[in-house]
Amino acid sequence: ITEVTDVRLAIDTTKIDVMEAGLSSCRSKPIINSVNANDDKIAALFPLAKKFNASIIGLTMDKSGIPKDAEGRLELAMKIVSNCVEYGIDVQELFIDAVILPVNVAQTHAKEVLRTIERSKILSDPSPKTILGLSNISQGALPKYRNLINRTFLSMAIGAGLDGAIMDAEDKDLMD
Amino acid sequence: ITEVTDVRLAIDTTKIDVMEAGLSSCRSKPIINSVNANDDKIAALFPLAKKFNASIIGLTMDKSGIPKDAEGRLELAMKIVSNCVEYGIDVQELFIDAVILPVNVAQTHAKEVLRTIERSKILSDPSPKTILGLSNISQGALPKYRNLINRTFLSMAIGAGLDGAIMDAEDKDLMD
Repeated sequence: ITEVTDVRLAIDTTKIDVMEAGLSSCRSKPIINSVNANDDKIAALFPLAKKFNASIIGLTMDKSGIPKDAEGRLELAMKIVSNCVEYGIDVQELFIDAVILPVNVAQTHAKEVLRTIERSKILSDPSPKTILGLSNISQGALPKYRNLINRTFLSMAIGAGLDGAIMDAEDKDLMD
Repeated sequence: ITEVTDVRLAIDTTKIDVMEAGLSSCRSKPIINSVNANDDKIAALFPLAKKFNASIIGLTMDKSGIPKDAEGRLELAMKIVSNCVEYGIDVQELFIDAVILPVNVAQTHAKEVLRTIERSKILSDPSPKTILGLSNISQGALPKYRNLINRTFLSMAIGAGLDGAIMDAEDKDLMD
């Protein structure tokens, strides 16, 4: 967790030297989170992923923001997949994160995220994996409903083919 | 509920006169359950559905049993949809039931049921609705896990586009 947090910070400020120091100190396989589909992010981070044999979490967003529908998200996912091939990174090391928005302010996005997860499986062969930062779905909801919303959406996403999630492993109902 | 149960019994024994008596006594809109894709069932029950303006629950199974995959189930769903058109029944009055099997004996079927629900939406325009007899997913599971399995699969199915379910409306966690 600490390593991932460090890497995330480094991405946000694009301090490549900090990224590289962090990656070189990882004792288990690292995952570089929050790589979006901007050309400059890809050009900065994909060579590091290749060098350190790191997995990548690729967000379906770019300078224009998060697309409203699955098609827009898949277009950005495809751009990230293509760049994996170009940089010689195994596509199976890529996790596509379709970027959940809070369901109370962007309800239609939830469905588009599910469709993105399903269709990510046919972007390439072998296909990328899929992942979600789960708790964002319930941001701003009444606290007593957050866990219910989280676990309900996780079930929906697993049904759609989700491979992994960044989530609270101490939430027993969620883990069940 | 009583009416539906009666109708189900009548189908099983194909007593069309009992069916007709039951349908004519319904005070609200009737639903004819368990119409499978066998020619003789369709020929017996679709005229009754038309006559009494009843909705139909069409099971994706026939004399050969329940297909193993979504493609086989959708082929039977399409046969039922086509017959709706032929008999002059509004396709939106049709609920496709992709027939869940207990997950502890037929785990791969669960995923095929989800794919069938998704793709039922593109069988026709307007599309048929979809429905599940939910609790069959957990038949034979340890009693303490049945409700968890039921509600998890229901969330998955709703994520796939499910329109309705025959389920225990007194299960609070499920309703949540």
